[in-house]
Amino acid sequence: VAGTLTLSARARASASSVIDDLFRLTRSRPDVVSFAAGAPDTSLLPVELLGDLTRAAVDRHGRVVLQYGDTQGFPPLREAVLPLLARRGLDCTVDDVHISTGGSGALNNLCMALLDEGDVVAVERPTYSPALRVFASYGARVVDVPGDADGLHPDALDACLARRPVRFLYAMPTFQNPTGRTMPAERRAAVAEVLDRHGTLLVEDDVYFDLRYRGEHLPALSALRPGRSVYLGSFSKLLAPALRTGYAVLPRPLLDGVLRLKQGIDMQTSSLTQALVAESLTGGRADRHLGVLRAVYQRKLGLLRDAVARHLPPSFTTNDPDGGMFLWLTAPAGVDLTVLLEAAVRGGVAYVPGSTFHADEAAAPRNTARLAFADVPEERIDEGARRLARVLGG
Amino acid sequence: VAGTLTLSARARASASSVIDDLFRLTRSRPDVVSFAAGAPDTSLLPVELLGDLTRAAVDRHGRVVLQYGDTQGFPPLREAVLPLLARRGLDCTVDDVHISTGGSGALNNLCMALLDEGDVVAVERPTYSPALRVFASYGARVVDVPGDADGLHPDALDACLARRPVRFLYAMPTFQNPTGRTMPAERRAAVAEVLDRHGTLLVEDDVYFDLRYRGEHLPALSALRPGRSVYLGSFSKLLAPALRTGYAVLPRPLLDGVLRLKQGIDMQTSSLTQALVAESLTGGRADRHLGVLRAVYQRKLGLLRDAVARHLPPSFTTNDPDGGMFLWLTAPAGVDLTVLLEAAVRGGVAYVPGSTFHADEAAAPRNTARLAFADVPEERIDEGARRLARVLGG
Repeated sequence: VAGTLTLSARARASASSVIDDLFRLTRSRPDVVSFAAGAPDTSLLPVELLGDLTRAAVDRHGRVVLQYGDTQGFPPLREAVLPLLARRGLDCTVDDVHISTGGSGALNNLCMALLDEGDVVAVERPTYSPALRVFASYGARVVDVPGDADGLHPDALDACLARRPVRFLYAMPTFQNPTGRTMPAERRAAVAEVLDRHGTLLVEDDVYFDLRYRGEHLPALSALRPGRSVYLGSFSKLLAPALRTGYAVLPRPLLDGVLRLKQGIDMQTSSLTQALVAESLTGGRADRHLGVLRAVYQRKLGLLRDAVARHLPPSFTTNDPDGGMFLWLTAPAGVDLTVLLEAAVRGGVAYVPGSTFHADEAAAPRNTARLAFADVPEERIDEGARRLARVLGG
Repeated sequence: VAGTLTLSARARASASSVIDDLFRLTRSRPDVVSFAAGAPDTSLLPVELLGDLTRAAVDRHGRVVLQYGDTQGFPPLREAVLPLLARRGLDCTVDDVHISTGGSGALNNLCMALLDEGDVVAVERPTYSPALRVFASYGARVVDVPGDADGLHPDALDACLARRPVRFLYAMPTFQNPTGRTMPAERRAAVAEVLDRHGTLLVEDDVYFDLRYRGEHLPALSALRPGRSVYLGSFSKLLAPALRTGYAVLPRPLLDGVLRLKQGIDMQTSSLTQALVAESLTGGRADRHLGVLRAVYQRKLGLLRDAVARHLPPSFTTNDPDGGMFLWLTAPAGVDLTVLLEAAVRGGVAYVPGSTFHADEAAAPRNTARLAFADVPEERIDEGARRLARVLGG
C-alpha cells in the first residue's frame, strides 16, 4: 500500500517554500511585524464593492455568470482589459486576450504548454521564486542572468543565450518581485534586441505595472516584440488576490495550446469573478480604487525607507523603487540574513531572505532581503524597522 | 521564430475535443436541440441567491474573502463540506478536506502529483473523456475495463490489474458520465475487494451523487477503502459550474503533494466563491435548491426516455438511470452514430457519440450515444427526439 501513495517525480521535486512556512508561522503570531508577505493591504480590499458589483454583473449578464463558459475567458472581461493593455503599449483585440485563474494560473498553463523535460528557462538573478518552482515542476532547468539596479544585463543575457538553446526568458521588468527594480526604456530596448537576435521567446510577468508612485508609465517590454512575447497581468494587486483572475496575451499558436490544456486543468476561470472584475473596470471603480492604493503604498514605501535609514546602521542600504510592493535591503557582506531570519522572527519581525529568490540558492548572496510593505499597518512600520535593527544591526 | 512557438509534447498531444467543437457549433445555432452539453439547467442556476450569499459571506468573514488564503481551502467551507461527506459514508475531519478549482481542478492536480511518464491508469469502458485527456497530458497510458449495466466488471478489473502495474483506477460509480449507470452495493464490494487484493489506489469521481431521483443513496465506493482512495466532488452540478469550486478527500501524503503543486498551479481556489458556497451550505439554501433540481431533472429524464421510445424504432434502446444528467442510447449494431452526428446537427439535433468516451476510440463501438437532458428545455425534448428519429431511424 505504501507504493500506492508514491508521488510523481514532479511532486517529489516540489519542496515546500520558505515563504509558505513563514506565512504560516507569522500568521499565528500577530505580534510579529511581517515584511514577509507579498500581499496587498488587507484593510483596502474593496469588500464594500462586492454587493454593487454582484448586482451589476447579474443585471447585465443574468445566469450566464453561473453557467459553463468560454475557456479563453468571459468575453466582456476580455473586452474590458483592452484599455489596460493599450496603457501598456500593447495593441490587441479580444481574440488575443486570455483570462486565467490568477497570474499564477497563466504562468502554470503556459509552462505546461511550452516545457518538455530538460528544457532550459532563463530568469533574472534574483527572480520571483514561485516561478522557479513552476519551471521545476515541468522538468525544466533554470539558468539565471545577472543584472544591476536597472534589471538584467543585456551582455550577460547575450552570453547566456549564446551558450545553449533557451526555451524562453522569464522576466519582470517593472517593480520586480523581489527587488522592486525597474528596467529603464534604454535597457528594455537593449534586452529586446538581444532576444530578437537569438529568436528567444519572452515571458513578461507584469503584475505590478499599475502600482507606479512616481514617473511615467513605461511601455511593456513585450510591446517591443509583438508575436514573440507572452504578457502576463493580474487583478490580484489591483483588486483582490482571492478573485484569482489574471490575464494574458499570447501568440495564437501558444494560446491554442494553453486553451486545450486549460480544459483539463480547470476548464475555465470562474465566470462570476470574471464578471465582477469586468464591472469594476467598466464602471471606473477599479481606477478610483487604484488611486487609493497608490497613495497609501507610496506613503508606506517612504515610511519604510526612512525607518530603515533611521534605525539600521549606514552599512545597511535599500534601493529606491518607483513603485510596486517591495523594498530590497542589502546588508554588509558578512551578515547572513538567511541564518538570521529565525532570530528575527523570535525578535518580532519577519522578511524573506534574498537567497530564496535565486535559481541556485546555495550559491546565492546571503546578505539581501525582500521587505514587503503593502500589508503592514503604517503605524507598525517604524517598530518593525527598530526590531530589524535590534536583531541585525547589533 | 517558428521554433520559438513550438508547443511541448503534452500540448501537442492534447487534441481539441469533439465535445468542444460541438459546443461551439450548437451555441451559434439556437435552433438545434442539443442533447450534447453536460451542463446544468441554465434557467435553474441560482443567480437570485448571489446577492444574499455575497452579503452574508462579507458580513461573516469580512475582507478575508478577498485576501490570499489557505491553499488547502477556505476553512469554513471545508467544515461545511463534512456533512455532505458523511452522507456519502465518508468519515472525515476538516484536515482531510481539500477545496479545488472545480472537480476538474482536483483531478488535474492529483494527476500531476501522481503520474510519471508511461504510468498506466485504468478506467471504465466507456469513461468520462475529459479525464482521458488529462491522463494523456501527464504522459500516462490508459487501459480500460469492460463492464455491464452495473458498472465495471470485477473479474475484468482483476485481470487488468494482474497484467501490469496500474497507478490507479479512475471510476465514476454513481450516475456515470457518460452512461448514467450506477454500481449497486454488491458490485462496489466486489470491486473494492479486487482493488484491495492488488493494492491499487482508487480515484472516485462522484460529482453526480446528489442528483438521485429514486432509491436510496449508496455509500461512496471510497467509503469501503479509506486511506487507499481519493474522493472527488463538485459544486458545479449542485450550485453552478462557473463557481469553479470542488472538493476532494485524499490520503495525507497525496494531499501534501497536491498542495505543493497547487501553489504553482493557481495558488488557491477563489476565497470569494468558496465563501459563497459555504454560505449556501450552512444556510440550507443548497439543500432547498437541490430539491428543485431533482424534481426538474427527474421529469426531464422521464420525458426524454418516453420521447425516444415513442419516436425511434424499437431497435434503438436506452437504459434507465436512477439519477444524474445522462441517458445512454444504443442503436442497432450497423448504425454508426459517430458518422451520423454531422447529419444530426444539420437536422437540428445534437448528441455526443459514445465512441468519444473510449480510451481506444478507433476500436470503440459506433452505435452508442450520450444524451444529456439537464439543460434542454422541457418543451423541446419531444421535438429533439423527433429529429433524432428523422436522422437515425429512417
